[in-house]
This record gives sequence, structure tokens and C-alpha cells, in this order.
Amino acid sequence: MSNYPEKVYLNGNLINAQDARISVFDRGFLFGDGVYEVMAQMNGEFFFGKEHLIRLRSSLKKTNINFDVSTLNEKIERLLKAVELDEKDCLLYIQITRGVAPRKHSFPKDTVPTLLMYAIPFTLAPINNTTISVISQPDFRWHRCDIKMTSLLGNVMANDFAITKGHHEAVFHRDGKMTEGSHSNLFFVKDGTIYTHPADRNILNGITREIVLKLCRDEKIPFIEEAINFGAIHTMDEAFLTGTSTQIASIRYFDNHCFYPKNEVPAMTQKLQRLFLDLKNTHTS
Amino acid sequence: MSNYPEKVYLNGNLINAQDARISVFDRGFLFGDGVYEVMAQMNGEFFFGKEHLIRLRSSLKKTNINFDVSTLNEKIERLLKAVELDEKDCLLYIQITRGVAPRKHSFPKDTVPTLLMYAIPFTLAPINNTTISVISQPDFRWHRCDIKMTSLLGNVMANDFAITKGHHEAVFHRDGKMTEGSHSNLFFVKDGTIYTHPADRNILNGITREIVLKLCRDEKIPFIEEAINFGAIHTMDEAFLTGTSTQIASIRYFDNHCFYPKNEVPAMTQKLQRLFLDLKNTHTS
Repeated sequence: MSNYPEKVYLNGNLINAQDARISVFDRGFLFGDGVYEVMAQMNGEFFFGKEHLIRLRSSLKKTNINFDVSTLNEKIERLLKAVELDEKDCLLYIQITRGVAPRKHSFPKDTVPTLLMYAIPFTLAPINNTTISVISQPDFRWHRCDIKMTSLLGNVMANDFAITKGHHEAVFHRDGKMTEGSHSNLFFVKDGTIYTHPADRNILNGITREIVLKLCRDEKIPFIEEAINFGAIHTMDEAFLTGTSTQIASIRYFDNHCFYPKNEVPAMTQKLQRLFLDLKNTHTS
Repeated sequence: MSNYPEKVYLNGNLINAQDARISVFDRGFLFGDGVYEVMAQMNGEFFFGKEHLIRLRSSLKKTNINFDVSTLNEKIERLLKAVELDEKDCLLYIQITRGVAPRKHSFPKDTVPTLLMYAIPFTLAPINNTTISVISQPDFRWHRCDIKMTSLLGNVMANDFAITKGHHEAVFHRDGKMTEGSHSNLFFVKDGTIYTHPADRNILNGITREIVLKLCRDEKIPFIEEAINFGAIHTMDEAFLTGTSTQIASIRYFDNHCFYPKNEVPAMTQKLQRLFLDLKNTHTS
């Protein structure tokens, strides 16, 4: 999602991206006081769009931002029509902040939340064939990673560290347990069983993470929502990342460990990628 | 600092506050990817202004934001003249973000940082006579609290919780140890010795915190930079908060504990408040 869109939707207006501006007193700017979502439109509808909006509602509730998510659908439609993406594959970014007020830590009363949305053309690959290299870091982020919010300095610092060192993503461990990536969830496979961190306050419960667990349930693939010890990485058979645009991406290199010497995605990750592809081809919201 | 200023300084321009706008693609807005300072002008000069700018430089370095702090002084002067505060007591807010770029976690190359500054009239009370009520919370913020940055959702959520419950400030404990407040540092007094959390990654090393330690050194008041156990609060003799606009404020109520039944600030806190007042009256940068 690394290009500017043509236009953005900002508080009811459709504006050329380079002219779209918010007040310097927006709490999103002064305090990182906002929440967001990214969702993918595919074949004319948002893939698990309902689930994304449910999570957005949950983030708003946890941060006490008073915004009615039920008003979003018609605004999204208006935006997509205006940029001629209403029938095209695209990624939609939605950000809601607490709004504009003089700078003071506690929440202002009666401010109107700021709504920013934009879409860019983006077609999900049928299968994400990238084989990923990750680098681990102690999880120095806050302890409410269950909230999808814009105070993301920890995430961007970790991600930049990984990119600078030539990796694709940073993955975190907290108290000796693997949590997640800087903008992805983390899975392992061992003896035919899938492992991933439970959806508590240490991770953001990704929609794709939930889809993978659903696929496991449907296909009777055993899975355990349990964090893997940092020290046990090299004993795992496979590892992969999930995310809305990442989909399911196989991890080949994990710090100094190589999961597979020949560049061939291992069996269980491949199986889940194919199941995910089937789901995309048949899913209707 | 809870009013709008008349004008702000934004990237070289002096703009009416209500017209001051930044791009929605500013990373300060999308990612909370910025740092800041607040400093107080008193008798025509910034109180420990040099130390604030040194800390700003440190925050920029830690976050890898490429901004030359040595260019700030003339910009600050220009702003203060324009709003006729150059010779008046005021608070100055400075925020620097990584700048404007398409949304992508890792740091963009060659972006120009965004600089926002504004000042509002504000006279520090000779002594802050407020007696403070604080409420404690587990420290759920990130683990780089040494960086003065704008990804502050954890701080504002904690502060709002405290305010909503009728307290002045939220104070944090991590792993059983008291760390600091949501926008202040925390001190205790026991048997004539001052205690405060060491300046590591768990706290923001406040300029006023450093001044208090300097006063202790100069006046031969024993002090130990050691965190107090959450469970030992009720065994302490006194407690106080420090901060640029807070100065030194006595804590009377700490959760259910009352440090002093009669509303009379205890001896050591009073002594430090007086020493701080003397320092303000004699200090020149």
C-alpha cells in the first residue's frame, strides 16, 4: 500500500490526496489517538469486510472513541465510486481519530471524530509465493496490542530495523514467548499441528489469523492457540505469517535459522495457502 | 496548556491556529511517528531550555528522525515575536514528525520532517500548591518510555481514566515497581531520603526530575535512584510529582492511601518546593 491514492475521503469530503489536510490539533497527530483498519476488496466485495468492521467497532470501544461504524458503508461506497474502484480490486484504509481539541492528555468532551479513508488499486496474488526472512526482537510495544491503533512508533521502528537489515518483517518475543510480527500474525507448524499465540492483549487478532484457524477447524487440521518459546523456534517444522495483504506467507529464514534449504514452501503452509485460495474463490460476505 | 494558541509555526510559516493543517499522510498522523518537547519561558528565557533541546536531540536520534535541532532557536524567536510572547511567560510546544510519505511501516527515505511549534501565555506559580490525588495502574505502555514521542495512546488512556475517576494523574507500576505518571515523574520520601525510579527505558527522564536530583546533590539531601515497590507505598513518608508545568506537586492521596490527613504539604516536599522556587528566581541559562 505504498503509493499515494488519487483522492481521499476526509470528514465527508472527497479531496485530492495532495490537498487533504487535517488540523495540527487533531489528536491523531498530537497523541496517536486513533484507530484504523485495512481491508481488501476482491471481486466486488470486501473479503471478510464484516469482520473488519466488527474489529473496528471493538477498537473504538476499547479506546472510548464515539463513532458510529454503521454509517461507514455508504461512505465507503461513495469513496469507491468517486475513485472508480467500486468494482475493482483494491485495499481500503480507514482511520478514525478522537478529533480536534486543544492539547491536553485526558479526552475532550463532545469532539467530532476525524474520519480518513482512501483506497488504492491492489490485487491480492492468488497465493503469496514470497518466502520470508524475519528477524526477532524483544517485544517492546505496549501491552494492549489487541487494539488496532495508530500509536505505532514501536511497530514502525521494529519494522524499519528489519527492513534495514535486509529482512521482510520483524517478529517479537515477550517474556520468552513469540507474539507476532510488526504488522502480521505469526504461526508455527510442528508434527502436523498449527501453533499461534492466543488472541489476548499481547497480539492483534488478525482477520486472516482467524480465517486460518477457521480453515483448520473446517479441515480438521489440529491447532493450538499457544505461544511458542523463542528458544524452541529451531525445533519447529514450519513457520508462516498472516495478514490482510500478506495473506499466508511462508517464513524461510528466522534469525539465523533456515526452515528449508531448498526454496520450496513446506507442506502444511502450502496446504493452508491452497485452502485460503479456495476460500477466496468461493467466499461471499 | 489546554487552550488553542492564536498562531502556530508550521514548517516555516506562521499560521492562524484554526487554519494550520498538515497532510493526512504525515507519519505523525498515520503512525504517531514523531517526538516532542514542552518548555516554559520565565523572565524572558526558557527554564533549562538547553536541557530540553538536548533531550529533543536525543529523542530524534533514538527514533532516527533526521532534523537539525540547532536550527530551532531562531525559529522559536520568530514565533514568539509574531505572537508577542518573546518577553512574556509562556509554554512552548515543539513537535517534529518524520514527515509526509505514502503509508508504509518502514521509514521513507529523504522525507522532510514536519515541524510544529506554538506558544501559549502561561505563568508558572511560584510554588504549585495543588495537593494531588493519583490512581495507580499497571504500566501497559511500551518499553521505550525514555523516548519523548507522540505515540501516546497509552498515556492518554491512563490519564483519562484517572481524570474520569476524579484524580489528577495516573501513576504506573511495572513488575511490582512504581515507574512514573502519565505525564510526570514520581518521587517518594522515606526517613529523609528521596527515592525515584532510575532514568532507564521505563521512564521519561524529566528535566524537572533532573533538577530535583541536582537540588538534592547541592543541598546534600540523600537520594537514591531506585524504584519503590508498589506494595510499599503506604510505608513511605511523602510522595510528589514533577514536570515542566507541574513543577513539584505534593501527592496527598495515592489510591486508598492518604499521605497526610490535614491538608499541609509535608516537610521534605515543602523544602524541595522552596529550593525549586529559589532556583527559578536565580537561574540563568
